[in-house]
Amino acid sequence: MSQITYTPIGIIHTPFKTQSETPIQGVFSPDSFGEVELYPQYFEGLKDISDFSYIILIYYFHLSQGYTLLKKPFLDNTEKGIFSIRHYDRPNPIGISVVRLNEVKENKLSISEVDIVDGTPLLDIKPYVTDFDSKNPEQKGWYADAPKMDDYRYRKGIQP
Amino acid sequence: MSQITYTPIGIIHTPFKTQSETPIQGVFSPDSFGEVELYPQYFEGLKDISDFSYIILIYYFHLSQGYTLLKKPFLDNTEKGIFSIRHYDRPNPIGISVVRLNEVKENKLSISEVDIVDGTPLLDIKPYVTDFDSKNPEQKGWYADAPKMDDYRYRKGIQP
Repeated sequence: MSQITYTPIGIIHTPFKTQSETPIQGVFSPDSFGEVELYPQYFEGLKDISDFSYIILIYYFHLSQGYTLLKKPFLDNTEKGIFSIRHYDRPNPIGISVVRLNEVKENKLSISEVDIVDGTPLLDIKPYVTDFDSKNPEQKGWYADAPKMDDYRYRKGIQP
Repeated sequence: MSQITYTPIGIIHTPFKTQSETPIQGVFSPDSFGEVELYPQYFEGLKDISDFSYIILIYYFHLSQGYTLLKKPFLDNTEKGIFSIRHYDRPNPIGISVVRLNEVKENKLSISEVDIVDGTPLLDIKPYVTDFDSKNPEQKGWYADAPKMDDYRYRKGIQP
Protein backbone atom coordinates (compact mmCIF):
# COMPACT_ATOMS: atom_id res chain seq x y z
CA MET A 1 0.00 0.00 0.00
CA SER A 2 1.78 3.12 -1.16
CA GLN A 3 -0.46 6.16 -1.36
CA ILE A 4 -4.15 6.81 -0.85
CA THR A 5 -5.93 9.54 -2.75
CA TYR A 6 -9.11 11.33 -1.75
CA THR A 7 -11.13 13.99 -3.54
CA PRO A 8 -12.86 16.74 -1.52
CA ILE A 9 -16.66 16.41 -1.46
CA GLY A 10 -17.26 19.98 -0.32
CA ILE A 11 -15.85 22.97 1.52
CA ILE A 12 -16.29 24.30 5.05
CA HIS A 13 -17.00 28.02 5.40
CA THR A 14 -16.35 29.71 8.75
CA PRO A 15 -15.56 33.22 10.02
CA PHE A 16 -12.01 32.10 10.98
CA LYS A 17 -9.59 33.23 8.32
CA THR A 18 -6.38 32.09 10.03
CA GLN A 19 -5.36 29.21 12.26
CA SER A 20 -4.57 31.54 15.15
CA GLU A 21 -8.10 32.98 15.29
CA THR A 22 -9.77 29.56 15.02
CA PRO A 23 -11.22 28.25 18.30
CA ILE A 24 -9.45 25.43 20.13
CA GLN A 25 -12.12 22.68 20.02
CA GLY A 26 -15.71 23.63 19.31
CA VAL A 27 -17.05 22.53 22.67
CA PHE A 28 -15.50 25.64 24.20
CA SER A 29 -17.07 27.84 21.51
CA PRO A 30 -20.80 27.02 21.30
CA ASP A 31 -21.45 30.30 19.48
CA SER A 32 -18.98 29.72 16.69
CA PHE A 33 -20.98 29.12 13.52
CA GLY A 34 -20.17 27.88 10.06
CA GLU A 35 -21.56 26.29 6.93
CA VAL A 36 -20.74 23.05 5.18
CA GLU A 37 -21.19 23.33 1.42
CA LEU A 38 -21.46 19.86 -0.05
CA TYR A 39 -20.75 19.74 -3.77
CA PRO A 40 -24.09 19.27 -5.58
CA GLN A 41 -23.27 15.85 -7.03
CA TYR A 42 -23.28 14.39 -3.48
CA PHE A 43 -26.55 16.02 -2.41
CA GLU A 44 -28.57 12.78 -2.35
CA GLY A 45 -26.22 11.39 0.32
CA LEU A 46 -27.61 13.93 2.84
CA LYS A 47 -30.94 12.09 3.13
CA ASP A 48 -31.87 11.59 6.82
CA ILE A 49 -28.96 13.72 8.09
CA SER A 50 -31.20 16.47 9.47
CA ASP A 51 -32.51 13.99 12.07
CA PHE A 52 -29.13 14.06 13.86
CA SER A 53 -28.19 16.78 16.37
CA TYR A 54 -24.46 16.19 15.87
CA ILE A 55 -22.38 15.13 12.90
CA ILE A 56 -18.72 14.24 12.54
CA LEU A 57 -16.79 16.17 9.91
CA ILE A 58 -13.61 14.69 8.50
CA TYR A 59 -11.46 17.13 6.60
CA TYR A 60 -8.05 17.98 5.20
CA PHE A 61 -5.88 20.25 7.35
CA HIS A 62 -4.94 22.23 4.26
CA LEU A 63 -2.84 24.79 6.13
CA SER A 64 -0.68 22.15 7.83
CA GLN A 65 3.03 22.81 7.35
CA GLY A 66 4.60 19.39 7.62
CA TYR A 67 5.03 17.68 10.96
CA THR A 68 7.27 16.83 13.87
CA LEU A 69 6.64 13.76 16.00
CA LEU A 70 6.84 15.78 19.21
CA LYS A 71 4.79 18.96 19.56
CA LYS A 72 3.21 21.19 22.18
CA PRO A 73 -0.58 20.95 22.15
CA PHE A 74 -2.63 24.15 22.25
CA LEU A 75 -3.84 23.42 25.78
CA ASP A 76 -0.57 22.59 27.49
CA ASN A 77 3.02 23.78 27.65
CA THR A 78 5.09 20.63 27.28
CA GLU A 79 5.79 18.52 24.23
CA LYS A 80 3.74 15.39 23.65
CA GLY A 81 3.79 12.71 20.99
CA ILE A 82 1.88 13.92 17.93
CA PHE A 83 -0.54 10.97 18.23
CA SER A 84 -1.37 12.05 21.80
CA ILE A 85 -2.54 15.50 20.70
CA ARG A 86 -4.91 16.95 18.10
CA HIS A 87 -2.57 19.46 16.46
CA TYR A 88 -2.88 19.88 12.69
CA ASP A 89 0.85 19.42 11.97
CA ARG A 90 0.70 15.61 11.84
CA PRO A 91 2.04 12.96 9.44
CA ASN A 92 -1.32 12.69 7.65
CA PRO A 93 -3.09 16.03 8.10
CA ILE A 94 -6.62 14.78 8.70
CA GLY A 95 -8.93 16.62 11.10
CA ILE A 96 -12.10 15.42 12.79
CA SER A 97 -14.65 17.60 14.56
CA VAL A 98 -17.96 16.80 16.18
CA VAL A 99 -20.19 19.78 15.35
CA ARG A 100 -23.79 20.64 16.06
CA LEU A 101 -26.07 20.46 13.03
CA ASN A 102 -28.61 23.29 13.13
CA GLU A 103 -30.23 23.29 9.71
CA VAL A 104 -30.01 21.64 6.31
CA LYS A 105 -31.00 23.58 3.19
CA GLU A 106 -30.40 21.66 -0.01
CA ASN A 107 -26.64 21.02 -0.11
CA LYS A 108 -25.78 23.44 2.73
CA LEU A 109 -25.52 22.52 6.40
CA SER A 110 -25.57 25.21 9.07
CA ILE A 111 -23.34 24.13 11.95
CA SER A 112 -22.13 25.45 15.29
CA GLU A 113 -19.49 24.53 17.90
CA VAL A 114 -17.05 24.97 15.04
CA ASP A 115 -13.24 24.83 15.38
CA ILE A 116 -12.38 24.77 11.68
CA VAL A 117 -10.57 27.38 9.59
CA ASP A 118 -12.37 28.91 6.60
CA GLY A 119 -11.95 27.16 3.26
CA THR A 120 -11.18 23.72 4.68
CA PRO A 121 -11.72 20.89 2.15
CA LEU A 122 -14.31 18.38 3.37
CA LEU A 123 -13.59 14.66 3.01
CA ASP A 124 -16.51 12.96 4.75
CA ILE A 125 -19.58 13.44 6.94
CA LYS A 126 -20.73 10.79 9.41
CA PRO A 127 -23.64 10.83 11.85
CA TYR A 128 -22.67 11.13 15.51
CA VAL A 129 -24.07 8.11 17.35
CA THR A 130 -23.66 8.20 21.11
CA ASP A 131 -23.54 4.42 21.41
CA PHE A 132 -20.58 4.28 19.01
CA ASP A 133 -18.75 7.50 19.75
CA SER A 134 -19.22 8.45 23.40
CA LYS A 135 -16.82 7.04 25.99
CA ASN A 136 -16.05 7.83 29.58
CA PRO A 137 -12.38 6.88 29.90
CA GLU A 138 -10.80 6.01 33.23
CA GLN A 139 -7.54 7.55 32.02
CA LYS A 140 -7.71 10.89 30.28
CA GLY A 141 -3.97 11.31 29.62
CA TRP A 142 -2.19 14.68 29.84
CA TYR A 143 -5.49 16.45 29.25
CA ALA A 144 -6.63 15.62 32.80
CA ASP A 145 -3.91 17.92 34.17
CA ALA A 146 -3.92 20.54 31.40
CA PRO A 147 -4.66 24.17 32.23
CA LYS A 148 -8.36 24.89 32.09
CA MET A 149 -9.70 26.54 28.97
CA ASP A 150 -10.27 29.81 30.81
CA ASP A 151 -6.59 29.87 31.73
CA TYR A 152 -5.72 29.26 28.09
CA ARG A 153 -7.90 32.12 26.92
CA TYR A 154 -6.30 34.37 29.50
CA ARG A 155 -2.78 33.48 28.40
CA LYS A 156 -3.61 34.11 24.78
CA GLY A 157 -5.47 37.32 25.53
CA ILE A 158 -8.68 35.87 24.09
CA GLN A 159 -11.91 37.09 25.60
CA PRO A 160 -14.55 34.41 26.12
CA MET B 1 -8.21 21.72 -4.59
CA SER B 2 -8.15 18.60 -6.72
CA GLN B 3 -6.81 15.55 -4.92
CA ILE B 4 -5.37 14.86 -1.48
CA THR B 5 -2.81 12.15 -0.96
CA TYR B 6 -2.04 10.33 2.28
CA THR B 7 0.54 7.67 3.09
CA PRO B 8 -0.31 4.90 5.59
CA ILE B 9 1.58 5.21 8.89
CA GLY B 10 0.93 1.62 9.94
CA ILE B 11 -1.36 -1.36 9.66
CA ILE B 12 -4.17 -2.73 11.81
CA HIS B 13 -4.10 -6.45 12.57
CA THR B 14 -7.31 -8.16 13.71
CA PRO B 15 -8.79 -11.68 13.66
CA PHE B 16 -11.41 -10.54 11.10
CA LYS B 17 -10.34 -11.64 7.65
CA THR B 18 -13.46 -10.50 5.77
CA GLN B 19 -15.92 -7.64 6.06
CA SER B 20 -18.80 -10.00 6.82
CA GLU B 21 -17.12 -11.45 9.91
CA THR B 22 -16.05 -8.03 11.25
CA PRO B 23 -18.14 -6.75 14.18
CA ILE B 24 -20.63 -3.93 13.62
CA GLN B 25 -19.21 -1.19 15.88
CA GLY B 26 -16.75 -2.14 18.59
CA VAL B 27 -18.97 -1.08 21.47
CA PHE B 28 -21.06 -4.20 20.89
CA SER B 29 -17.93 -6.39 20.85
CA PRO B 30 -15.85 -5.59 23.95
CA ASP B 31 -13.94 -8.86 23.57
CA SER B 32 -12.80 -8.25 20.01
CA PHE B 33 -9.07 -7.62 20.13
CA GLY B 34 -6.50 -6.34 17.68
CA GLU B 35 -3.09 -4.75 17.28
CA VAL B 36 -2.04 -1.49 15.72
CA GLU B 37 1.43 -1.75 14.18
CA LEU B 38 2.82 1.74 13.69
CA TYR B 39 5.67 1.87 11.19
CA PRO B 40 8.92 2.35 13.14
CA GLN B 41 9.73 5.78 11.72
CA TYR B 42 6.68 7.22 13.56
CA PHE B 43 7.43 5.57 16.91
CA GLU B 44 8.39 8.79 18.71
CA GLY B 45 4.89 10.17 18.04
CA LEU B 46 3.43 7.62 20.51
CA LYS B 47 4.88 9.44 23.54
CA ASP B 48 2.18 9.89 26.22
CA ILE B 49 -0.41 7.78 24.35
CA SER B 50 -0.43 5.00 26.96
CA ASP B 51 -2.02 7.46 29.42
CA PHE B 52 -5.27 7.39 27.43
CA SER B 53 -7.90 4.65 27.88
CA TYR B 54 -9.36 5.26 24.42
CA ILE B 55 -7.88 6.35 21.13
CA ILE B 56 -9.43 7.27 17.79
CA LEU B 57 -8.14 5.37 14.78
CA ILE B 58 -8.55 6.87 11.33
CA TYR B 59 -7.99 4.45 8.51
CA TYR B 60 -8.52 3.62 4.86
CA PHE B 61 -11.47 1.35 4.05
CA HIS B 62 -9.27 -0.60 1.66
CA LEU B 63 -11.97 -3.17 0.79
CA SER B 64 -14.52 -0.53 -0.19
CA GLN B 65 -15.99 -1.17 -3.64
CA GLY B 66 -17.06 2.25 -4.83
CA TYR B 67 -20.16 3.93 -3.47
CA THR B 68 -23.80 4.77 -3.91
CA LEU B 69 -25.33 7.82 -2.25
CA LEU B 70 -28.20 5.77 -0.80
CA LYS B 71 -27.43 2.59 1.11
CA LYS B 72 -28.87 0.34 3.79
CA PRO B 73 -26.92 0.56 7.04
CA PHE B 74 -25.93 -2.64 8.84
CA LEU B 75 -28.35 -1.95 11.66
CA ASP B 76 -31.50 -1.11 9.74
CA ASN B 77 -33.47 -2.30 6.72
CA THR B 78 -34.22 0.86 4.78
CA GLU B 79 -31.97 2.99 2.62
CA LYS B 80 -30.43 6.12 4.12
CA GLY B 81 -28.17 8.82 2.75
CA ILE B 82 -24.57 7.62 2.82
CA PHE B 83 -23.60 10.57 5.09
CA SER B 84 -26.26 9.46 7.60
CA ILE B 85 -24.70 6.01 8.03
CA ARG B 86 -21.26 4.57 8.73
CA HIS B 87 -21.00 2.09 5.86
CA TYR B 88 -17.59 1.69 4.20
CA ASP B 89 -18.87 2.16 0.63
CA ARG B 90 -18.72 5.98 0.73
CA PRO B 91 -17.34 8.65 -1.62
CA ASN B 92 -14.09 8.93 0.34
CA PRO B 93 -13.56 5.57 2.07
CA ILE B 94 -12.27 6.81 5.44
CA GLY B 95 -13.15 4.96 8.63
CA ILE B 96 -13.00 6.11 12.22
CA SER B 97 -13.23 3.91 15.30
CA VAL B 98 -12.93 4.69 18.97
CA VAL B 99 -11.08 1.70 20.45
CA ARG B 100 -9.86 0.81 23.91
CA LEU B 101 -6.09 1.01 24.33
CA ASN B 102 -4.87 -1.83 26.54
CA GLU B 103 -1.09 -1.80 26.20
CA VAL B 104 1.70 -0.13 24.30
CA LYS B 105 4.92 -2.05 23.54
CA GLU B 106 7.33 -0.11 21.40
CA ASN B 107 5.51 0.55 18.11
CA LYS B 108 2.65 -1.87 18.81
CA LEU B 109 -0.65 -1.00 20.46
CA SER B 110 -2.92 -3.70 21.84
CA ILE B 111 -6.53 -2.64 21.39
CA SER B 112 -10.02 -3.98 22.03
CA GLU B 113 -13.62 -3.07 21.10
CA VAL B 114 -12.38 -3.49 17.54
CA ASP B 115 -14.63 -3.32 14.45
CA ILE B 116 -11.88 -3.23 11.81
CA VAL B 117 -10.99 -5.81 9.19
CA ASP B 118 -7.49 -7.33 9.19
CA GLY B 119 -4.83 -5.55 7.15
CA THR B 120 -6.46 -2.12 7.22
CA PRO B 121 -4.03 0.72 6.43
CA LEU B 122 -3.76 3.22 9.30
CA LEU B 123 -3.84 6.94 8.52
CA ASP B 124 -3.86 8.62 11.93
CA ILE B 125 -4.18 8.11 15.68
CA LYS B 126 -5.74 10.73 17.95
CA PRO B 127 -6.34 10.67 21.70
CA TYR B 128 -9.99 10.34 22.73
CA VAL B 129 -10.87 13.34 24.88
CA THR B 130 -14.33 13.22 26.46
CA ASP B 131 -14.65 17.01 26.53
CA PHE B 132 -14.10 17.17 22.77
CA ASP B 133 -15.65 13.95 21.55
CA SER B 134 -18.55 12.99 23.80
CA LYS B 135 -22.01 14.40 23.07
CA ASN B 136 -25.50 13.58 24.23
CA PRO B 137 -27.65 14.53 21.24
CA GLU B 138 -31.32 15.39 21.58
CA GLN B 139 -31.94 13.87 18.15
CA LYS B 140 -30.34 10.53 17.38
CA GLY B 141 -31.66 10.13 13.83
CA TRP B 142 -32.73 6.78 12.40
CA TYR B 143 -30.55 4.99 14.91
CA ALA B 144 -33.03 5.78 17.70
CA ASP B 145 -35.59 3.50 16.03
CA ALA B 146 -33.21 0.90 14.60
CA PRO B 147 -33.51 -2.75 15.65
CA LYS B 148 -31.52 -3.46 18.78
CA MET B 149 -28.12 -5.06 18.35
CA ASP B 150 -29.39 -8.36 19.75
CA ASP B 151 -32.05 -8.42 17.07
CA TYR B 152 -29.38 -7.78 14.46
CA ARG B 153 -27.24 -10.64 15.74
CA TYR B 154 -30.26 -12.89 15.68
CA ARG B 155 -31.09 -12.01 12.08
CA LYS B 156 -27.54 -12.62 10.97
CA GLY B 157 -27.23 -15.81 13.00
CA ILE B 158 -24.36 -14.34 15.02
CA GLN B 159 -24.07 -15.54 18.59
CA PRO B 160 -23.24 -12.85 21.12
